[in-house]
Amino acid sequence: MVLAVLLVTFAGAGTAFALNNNTVVTEAQDGARPEGCVAPDRELQMYAVELPRDPVTNQIRLGYGLTPETASYPGPTMEMIEGECLAITLHNQVSAETLSQLRTNPTHPLGVSLHVHGVKYTQDSDGTVHSGSFVAPGQSRTYTWYAKPRSSRTGSPGTAGYWWYHDHVVGGTHGTQGLNSGLFGGLVVRRQGDVRPDRTYVTAFGDRQSINLRRGAAADNCDLENPVPGPACFVAKIGERVEFIVIGMGDDMHTWHVHGHSWADTRTGVVVGDNKALVDSIPVIDNKTLGPGDSFGVTITAGDSVGPGHWMLHCHMQFHSDLGMATTLHVLDENGQMPPGGHQHREVVNRTPLNNGGSTDGAPAAGGDQSTDPHAGHR
Amino acid sequence: MVLAVLLVTFAGAGTAFALNNNTVVTEAQDGARPEGCVAPDRELQMYAVELPRDPVTNQIRLGYGLTPETASYPGPTMEMIEGECLAITLHNQVSAETLSQLRTNPTHPLGVSLHVHGVKYTQDSDGTVHSGSFVAPGQSRTYTWYAKPRSSRTGSPGTAGYWWYHDHVVGGTHGTQGLNSGLFGGLVVRRQGDVRPDRTYVTAFGDRQSINLRRGAAADNCDLENPVPGPACFVAKIGERVEFIVIGMGDDMHTWHVHGHSWADTRTGVVVGDNKALVDSIPVIDNKTLGPGDSFGVTITAGDSVGPGHWMLHCHMQFHSDLGMATTLHVLDENGQMPPGGHQHREVVNRTPLNNGGSTDGAPAAGGDQSTDPHAGHR
Amino acid sequence: MVLAVLLVTFAGAGTAFALNNNTVVTEAQDGARPEGCVAPDRELQMYAVELPRDPVTNQIRLGYGLTPETASYPGPTMEMIEGECLAITLHNQVSAETLSQLRTNPTHPLGVSLHVHGVKYTQDSDGTVHSGSFVAPGQSRTYTWYAKPRSSRTGSPGTAGYWWYHDHVVGGTHGTQGLNSGLFGGLVVRRQGDVRPDRTYVTAFGDRQSINLRRGAAADNCDLENPVPGPACFVAKIGERVEFIVIGMGDDMHTWHVHGHSWADTRTGVVVGDNKALVDSIPVIDNKTLGPGDSFGVTITAGDSVGPGHWMLHCHMQFHSDLGMATTLHVLDENGQMPPGGHQHREVVNRTPLNNGGSTDGAPAAGGDQSTDPHAGHR
Repeated sequence: MVLAVLLVTFAGAGTAFALNNNTVVTEAQDGARPEGCVAPDRELQMYAVELPRDPVTNQIRLGYGLTPETASYPGPTMEMIEGECLAITLHNQVSAETLSQLRTNPTHPLGVSLHVHGVKYTQDSDGTVHSGSFVAPGQSRTYTWYAKPRSSRTGSPGTAGYWWYHDHVVGGTHGTQGLNSGLFGGLVVRRQGDVRPDRTYVTAFGDRQSINLRRGAAADNCDLENPVPGPACFVAKIGERVEFIVIGMGDDMHTWHVHGHSWADTRTGVVVGDNKALVDSIPVIDNKTLGPGDSFGVTITAGDSVGPGHWMLHCHMQFHSDLGMATTLHVLDENGQMPPGGHQHREVVNRTPLNNGGSTDGAPAAGGDQSTDPHAGHR
Repeated sequence: MVLAVLLVTFAGAGTAFALNNNTVVTEAQDGARPEGCVAPDRELQMYAVELPRDPVTNQIRLGYGLTPETASYPGPTMEMIEGECLAITLHNQVSAETLSQLRTNPTHPLGVSLHVHGVKYTQDSDGTVHSGSFVAPGQSRTYTWYAKPRSSRTGSPGTAGYWWYHDHVVGGTHGTQGLNSGLFGGLVVRRQGDVRPDRTYVTAFGDRQSINLRRGAAADNCDLENPVPGPACFVAKIGERVEFIVIGMGDDMHTWHVHGHSWADTRTGVVVGDNKALVDSIPVIDNKTLGPGDSFGVTITAGDSVGPGHWMLHCHMQFHSDLGMATTLHVLDENGQMPPGGHQHREVVNRTPLNNGGSTDGAPAAGGDQSTDPHAGHR
Repeated sequence: MVLAVLLVTFAGAGTAFALNNNTVVTEAQDGARPEGCVAPDRELQMYAVELPRDPVTNQIRLGYGLTPETASYPGPTMEMIEGECLAITLHNQVSAETLSQLRTNPTHPLGVSLHVHGVKYTQDSDGTVHSGSFVAPGQSRTYTWYAKPRSSRTGSPGTAGYWWYHDHVVGGTHGTQGLNSGLFGGLVVRRQGDVRPDRTYVTAFGDRQSINLRRGAAADNCDLENPVPGPACFVAKIGERVEFIVIGMGDDMHTWHVHGHSWADTRTGVVVGDNKALVDSIPVIDNKTLGPGDSFGVTITAGDSVGPGHWMLHCHMQFHSDLGMATTLHVLDENGQMPPGGHQHREVVNRTPLNNGGSTDGAPAAGGDQSTDPHAGHR
């Protein structure tokens, strides 16, 4: 690592390597960068840490953070521009004890990893067990991601899009327990010229009828007097360009729906240009199916034509929404205020705790705001 | 309607609400129209009424109708053109007693609503409990829908597309019981210049392996001697342009498949123009996954190249079709006749009653035309 | 085939049916060809045969083959060019006894069929019971498929795409048991000018967490010393253009994901041309949801930018991959070798047998490589 820094320094270029003296950083071997990435343009530190257990379910919670103190689920939203190469050094601060609890097969290795969708990486940055590209407790490892641009010559489709990154090791070969615990985050790769949004939110739809591992009241914890945008508080001023990175994870199918707003089913959610045949061929939708591993982008103009208010954002699978898989896009007026009457929605927010619903979708379990009969909501 | 027209004439302004002397019509407050809708271009009355119980399952059935006498499930297919603003006054003729039976939480309000996908509306027309935009038994309320056109300047994607409308209140916050009972219908918004079809059918794929809440013989009740197109009778003459509004609702995933026909996966199901790169990039499909809340349009030319006959239209999820989630597109010849041999299909139509199959998809239940073993069809 | 050609030559007309002296071939009646197909351009024989039972699950296995000896599951990958008309004579060599075992309703006819997606056929080639277009044991029948080209005049969308064919009769009206036993295969229809791939693989994602009816070790049986591409061995040299025909079948939803590679969500997986607005609107993805009956094409350049290695290809539904719904794209270097270290992946390949997991997705069953608790992997 020191050598790398010196090399960059002497060359008069972007010396962005952060040093971490406490851990051994496993460097990818020479040549283990994706073709097109001569050297990283940027370096980041990423920490996998243990967070307080879920206040509702008591499940173990892990998070990624650019610092240990800011770790969260979802992890930090990453942004790249096509052409950029990023080196991320992952520091595993999750204890072996905790990782042991998350596996049931004692021969499975203990570690965490970064597996990323969409961008390019070699086997050394795959984040899988078979490639050895994971990080034991207390150790570190540098992953290299390359946002390859499109090449019409080779047919390479480019990497601009809405992606996600996640663990692929905790608990088993596919990182199911890492995902379930919180080791995931959004990634957007922009193309040169893409318009940047005013706000970006991540909505990972997952098991137990959850949005970012929360549901019911926990999925919309906005303080309406002083809303602070966060993983469970989606707020925008009317006219702002709001971008959602929509992610599917876990075992279940979901559909992503927002009231009052729609988007074009394109790479970004927006149609560029005025070519009539093209414009005319693109579906505009307000509800989209996603399965685990899927990710897509939705760009909307907050309150466009429909005005401010509490716009529901929920899974349209009825028993999912009934069990609390719903949150809100709070659209404020031009002055940043919610018009009168808006607060009444609080009365009807679904407050089903996460541990009160089934984790298997096929046999919907008890719960839901209007139901004492477990099957009343969907039979 | 006549009165409404007079009002508009005399007042010379946008107070175009149709009056109904028997009920109190809750008008949206001033300014509660989506931006771009200065005044409604058209007004409609819509009635939510109780229909006879399902003959097979004995479930409560509700329907929307432009008159109380014509209420049905699906409700009337609505059609708009981009730029149009529509005012719909919903009259709730469903009794409090019936609505009470459909909820299990006694604090949930009794009422029905209109929630629509795709077009623009303010919170006052959201059709949700938190916005107070629902209709108590015996009352009425006017909803305003605006088919906003595309604006390349603002990036607003336009509202042309295949949508649906449904209750969002009956039984619980998400209207699950309203949907289950029949309060849903299709909406198509056309762009200026869109070719109009010869026939439009709605196929809402829902729970209990149902198409428009029917399955097996009930999903294809065509009188072959004198077929009358309807919610359970899809018929077309060869060469006719047939449009399907495909809707997903309920808790389950489905796939929409028709034999012998395919369509382009675009906004309308048709590719416009001859731009080679565009034409070449659009997938042509004959099977499409949909989840609850999804809606899309399929436009086909009946019998194109394949001729007349009984073309199966079914969910391709095998245990769904085995349990009766199948109907038929009956394509007649140029003379409006079915060629000889066509009637034999009646012998093999799946006649499983709707109450004989499981409502939970994950554990497929007994039934199906060829199976006495409940699991024989999907193991 | 030779005889058929001679017949055509001598007769100078459309009597291009291949003869098979051992069985009765039911010819489609005159005029029973899809419009546009004057006479078949090509004839093939197809055999439906019984194969050895599944070594893991002991299930009955059937296969299609261009010869009885080469029958397999998936069946032979079919390829057509738009404009081509193909006559396929299906010979049913599956015994009545075996077919009887696969039905539970004794009135359901015994037979096999060819039902195809995407291309054009008349009712006589529908492969269904109601149309009588199936083949009793020991009999034969000729099916005619027409790869109709696009017509911008009529709006006919063309048939180029990634499709599949399958039985629609075995066991019941929808052929569920035929599919479950192995009677399915891929079909690609190319447009004039489409670039042909170096390799084509079929991945049918189906029930019991299976890829082509296999899972775990059975889904990746490559001999790494001497890999022979096959239904369970996906191998390519770096830079090769690899095409996957992705098929969904059975009862369950899946998501198709490959590590390190992505594709454009177009008809072929590739974007043609340089129109900026078009290129910019097309999502690039590395994970796609598919339900039963869906099919699509994925074209990638093996190892593009990411290099050689063992690239996981799996369903991203976590409990599916945990139960063994995973295989590998083995990308070799320029010399056709796997770089050092590659073999270590063998240690961690999931070896769960197919009969050890649940067939109902909603209640995930025991199994998985890292789990002794049946629910550990997805709770």
